[in-house]
Amino acid sequence: MSLVVVGSMAFDAIETPFGKTGKIVGGAGTYIAWCASNFTPVKQISVVGGDFPQAELDALTARNVDVEAVQIKKDEKTFFWSGRYHMDMNTRDTLETQLNVLGDFQPVVPDSYQDCEFLMLGNLAPSVQSSVIEQLKNRPKLIVMDTMNFWMEIAMDDLKKTISMVDVLMVNDSEARQLSGDYSLVRAAQTIMAMGPKYIIIKKGEHGALLFHGNQVFFAPALPLEEVFDPTGAGDTFAGGFIAHLAKTKDISFDNMKTAIIVGSAMASFCVEKFGTERIREIGKEDIDARLSEFVQLSNFDISLV
Amino acid sequence: MSLVVVGSMAFDAIETPFGKTGKIVGGAGTYIAWCASNFTPVKQISVVGGDFPQAELDALTARNVDVEAVQIKKDEKTFFWSGRYHMDMNTRDTLETQLNVLGDFQPVVPDSYQDCEFLMLGNLAPSVQSSVIEQLKNRPKLIVMDTMNFWMEIAMDDLKKTISMVDVLMVNDSEARQLSGDYSLVRAAQTIMAMGPKYIIIKKGEHGALLFHGNQVFFAPALPLEEVFDPTGAGDTFAGGFIAHLAKTKDISFDNMKTAIIVGSAMASFCVEKFGTERIREIGKEDIDARLSEFVQLSNFDISLV
Repeated sequence: MSLVVVGSMAFDAIETPFGKTGKIVGGAGTYIAWCASNFTPVKQISVVGGDFPQAELDALTARNVDVEAVQIKKDEKTFFWSGRYHMDMNTRDTLETQLNVLGDFQPVVPDSYQDCEFLMLGNLAPSVQSSVIEQLKNRPKLIVMDTMNFWMEIAMDDLKKTISMVDVLMVNDSEARQLSGDYSLVRAAQTIMAMGPKYIIIKKGEHGALLFHGNQVFFAPALPLEEVFDPTGAGDTFAGGFIAHLAKTKDISFDNMKTAIIVGSAMASFCVEKFGTERIREIGKEDIDARLSEFVQLSNFDISLV
Repeated sequence: MSLVVVGSMAFDAIETPFGKTGKIVGGAGTYIAWCASNFTPVKQISVVGGDFPQAELDALTARNVDVEAVQIKKDEKTFFWSGRYHMDMNTRDTLETQLNVLGDFQPVVPDSYQDCEFLMLGNLAPSVQSSVIEQLKNRPKLIVMDTMNFWMEIAMDDLKKTISMVDVLMVNDSEARQLSGDYSLVRAAQTIMAMGPKYIIIKKGEHGALLFHGNQVFFAPALPLEEVFDPTGAGDTFAGGFIAHLAKTKDISFDNMKTAIIVGSAMASFCVEKFGTERIREIGKEDIDARLSEFVQLSNFDISLV
């Protein structure tokens, strides 16, 4: 019984109004693994080049992240992305993308991962995501998929096929509108659920996240912060917290998914406090529990007096 | 002991992507009174022209809204506003404004209103709002003030004076940024609280509302709706629900303000379902209780399992 995570491990170079980084470790899979390993062991599937630091893999191993299925292509280079955030921190320009090892990534699921009960498909080419599902002999109890507008533009058929295979789809609000062709997020959610997933999570950045299932809906706020220092990886960290809570508790009821979204929101609120994975790798259980209590204060109310 | 509401009573003509109205009854004071009268009696202060329908005043009287201090200027015309909403329903253009009776409105607080315990200052010229406070012999237990960017542009000194006299200020997110000069809503709230109000509510439309008090913060979601049919009056209705719940329960603790914001959000979610005041005047206690239960489903979660 385990949580399997598929996602990029990468180098990023980030510019925000607060400063810029050199080449730092990033990638959806990296953020998900760092976050999820606070709650449950992780079996990681990814690919890196010979330039990726062994120390990073060792640090993840020490966190109970199994890197057996992280391919190391010694003579190639790791995926690289650089971007610049605008003043509002909600929009960014991609300055450079070097696919490198990600260009022909063919994930291989080892025998030791076949006990997969929870599968997190981080943002990647949808054909890569579906190949992992197809390699699993038993369907996981829950498959969660993250994706982005890029794949809607260049691989819509592949994307729709993969979406039809998963239980939970995560997209942001503009992606939900693009995928459904509907401005109303309530109707967009219904349209996307008709494509296959029984659950859809619509991420709205600083405005929180919505979870839809049938006619049920749940809303999780984002923690109001003085500054969002660097939004990179916040969505991946959110995904990691969401699936890790479900994997830890082995409960996929709608009520437990509500809690899982709050866990994801709490973890994402740490992620944006520093550049890259810096904050998410230094926090522990006490920090997380305190942050979750802040979410209770932020959200809970009593209508018995009305 | 009573709730006193000051606000415009007006004619509106509204265009949305769903259609357009002729001249219909509107105005901040009208929305606040219709909403608040579901919870508690209201003493209304306003001004209308000879063209304003007596039937509208009678309908409010039948709802336990005292209109003694609604001045009727027989030979003048009622305030008129017309506007057109854009596709996203978050932005609108003002097509026409005729101040008419509102141009030289001098509110008069009658003796029978001197028991005012809760005072709601709907959006009006800040000098008009402060003149009501100054006419009250005893300071109310709670003064809530709504305002808008227009007054920041033409009457900032008056506005700051009035803000310094109230307990709770309500503005939307862009107004909070304009008033404070800070993009971060968390810092904007601190800056505005330093101007006098102990509480600030920042309304974010479809993204909900934030309540700040000292270092405490509460977030109320907006109900996700398939369609926002007409946003006119949603902020006023929110204000009406907020102060009416507090006036009814006579409890101004932070915890009860949380509940009051949810009540305001629930009432606003009705308001946008039809043009003008149509929806807000047809609902009753059962509708409101059912909507409040939807907010519990939408927001509540259990972190005891984490």
